[in-house]
Amino acid sequence: MIDSLIKKIIKMQNPTCVGLDTDFSYLPEEMRGGVTTFSEAAKRIFEFNKNIIDNVCDIVPSVKVQIAYYEMYGYYGLKAFNQTVNYAHKKGLIVIADCKRNDIGSTASCYSKAYLGKTQIGDKKIKAFPADMLTVNGYLGSDGIKPFVEDIKNNNKSIFVLVKTSNPSSGELQNLKLENGKYIYEQMGELVEEWGKDTIGKYGYSEVGAVVGATHPEEAARLRAQMPNTFFLIPGYGAQGGSAEMLKVCFDKRGLGGVVNSSRGILCAYKKPEYSGKNYYEAARAACIDMQNDLLSAIGKMGRK
Amino acid sequence: MIDSLIKKIIKMQNPTCVGLDTDFSYLPEEMRGGVTTFSEAAKRIFEFNKNIIDNVCDIVPSVKVQIAYYEMYGYYGLKAFNQTVNYAHKKGLIVIADCKRNDIGSTASCYSKAYLGKTQIGDKKIKAFPADMLTVNGYLGSDGIKPFVEDIKNNNKSIFVLVKTSNPSSGELQNLKLENGKYIYEQMGELVEEWGKDTIGKYGYSEVGAVVGATHPEEAARLRAQMPNTFFLIPGYGAQGGSAEMLKVCFDKRGLGGVVNSSRGILCAYKKPEYSGKNYYEAARAACIDMQNDLLSAIGKMGRK
Repeated sequence: MIDSLIKKIIKMQNPTCVGLDTDFSYLPEEMRGGVTTFSEAAKRIFEFNKNIIDNVCDIVPSVKVQIAYYEMYGYYGLKAFNQTVNYAHKKGLIVIADCKRNDIGSTASCYSKAYLGKTQIGDKKIKAFPADMLTVNGYLGSDGIKPFVEDIKNNNKSIFVLVKTSNPSSGELQNLKLENGKYIYEQMGELVEEWGKDTIGKYGYSEVGAVVGATHPEEAARLRAQMPNTFFLIPGYGAQGGSAEMLKVCFDKRGLGGVVNSSRGILCAYKKPEYSGKNYYEAARAACIDMQNDLLSAIGKMGRK
Repeated sequence: MIDSLIKKIIKMQNPTCVGLDTDFSYLPEEMRGGVTTFSEAAKRIFEFNKNIIDNVCDIVPSVKVQIAYYEMYGYYGLKAFNQTVNYAHKKGLIVIADCKRNDIGSTASCYSKAYLGKTQIGDKKIKAFPADMLTVNGYLGSDGIKPFVEDIKNNNKSIFVLVKTSNPSSGELQNLKLENGKYIYEQMGELVEEWGKDTIGKYGYSEVGAVVGATHPEEAARLRAQMPNTFFLIPGYGAQGGSAEMLKVCFDKRGLGGVVNSSRGILCAYKKPEYSGKNYYEAARAACIDMQNDLLSAIGKMGRK
């Protein structure tokens, strides 16, 4: 699946991922009116997502659906999550389920079935939340990751493992130095390269990617050098303070190597003065184009020789 | 909430948590017949859980509901998860949602609302999956944990942070030594003590607990000494190879300090020769009593002076 994503990035000249972290409060007031139940809120959230997807699917290669923003509306929220995943897929987008799942092997295999594989019931196998890619947390080590890697190989999927996260306190653990001279995030990066080594595609990147925050350019540069076969999912652009200049170190000499997420910057663009006069999905589209130009000017042409 | 759990443990003389990791294949054949959809599977899973709960709620203080086993059945599975959480609560059990959630602050706050707090819609605040306690992963550091700690304080809840997990490969990252001489799991333990320090209850344990696997007695003993105010959620007993003798180091001189989870050992007890002639919920009850006796003989009386 990583090859498909890179191919789309080159074709569209856009390494953007639109983050559908759709908090109900992000919706315009007229869409929120009269809503008093999870069921109604979930319907409006999907309607909002659908309009965003319709208006960006021809210019961005991927969306990232952050499941926490759906879980907070109970199982109705999860229904909206599923509708969003399926609709984005139908519109040709590559769908990253941002769930950061993690557990021991037997349980990780359930999560993997839920997002990357199929669940067996009697003689039937059914997809639960059919994403293309999934974020996971590697704190439990190899046997918590292997079930995902199996499904990746069998079903043409990808995962992104948390390596250096975008949040301010990410260094509390991740930037501690080990006795062997490496930082914890570098050690995690090493595990990630190892987990992906049998799945390297035609652009030289494996199906086991890494989450590397745009807000930490120094660490990102070290990781890019250390992990030549690992594709990065890069959160933290925009609302969290990461800029195109800061994150360009995540990309290789061909202008490849990462996909950059923006959530609030796109979903809530309509609230900003620079997009006044536009409704929320027109503003989202305009913000995507501005983001594309910003990234292109820092990274350069994607897929250059 | 940790005081309520400890109080129940002392009253029942049982530090057991029944793990409702209810894979559909755990159900007796006659309950699985004719099921071909997630909706039907989820209904049967809840029916199974309900019968387990009815037959153990007077002898065990808590259940742990492992959400991966529900997510694999899509949002129908999440409905069964919610029904299970609510039913267990109604029957007086303390409910641990085993979700190992983790993310940056703004997103962690959505997860916290989902399991420990309430979600605001207009003027209303609604509970999504109302658990008493939640497992979380601390790889992102303080700002990914603080939203949970806020809800803990406001709503009388608890969390358990992964420190030393029960799986075979947990040492790949967790047992690496830092430059400061500590192991990563010890460093995580230190963060956990810090996160919990304002929430210490009448038994000396805080609302921010730690997940410490029964399968790693050496590490568990170090953590118990290092973390005097941290209550342990102890997985790995039974099917994963942990024994009462191995995990007794998690307990203090009063016989307090932890709750021990068993999932397959109880849910699938009816498949074992020693419980033959019993149906699944009778076997589950018998297995709980055997587990209680096993733990009591190793740990001794709970709440002793």
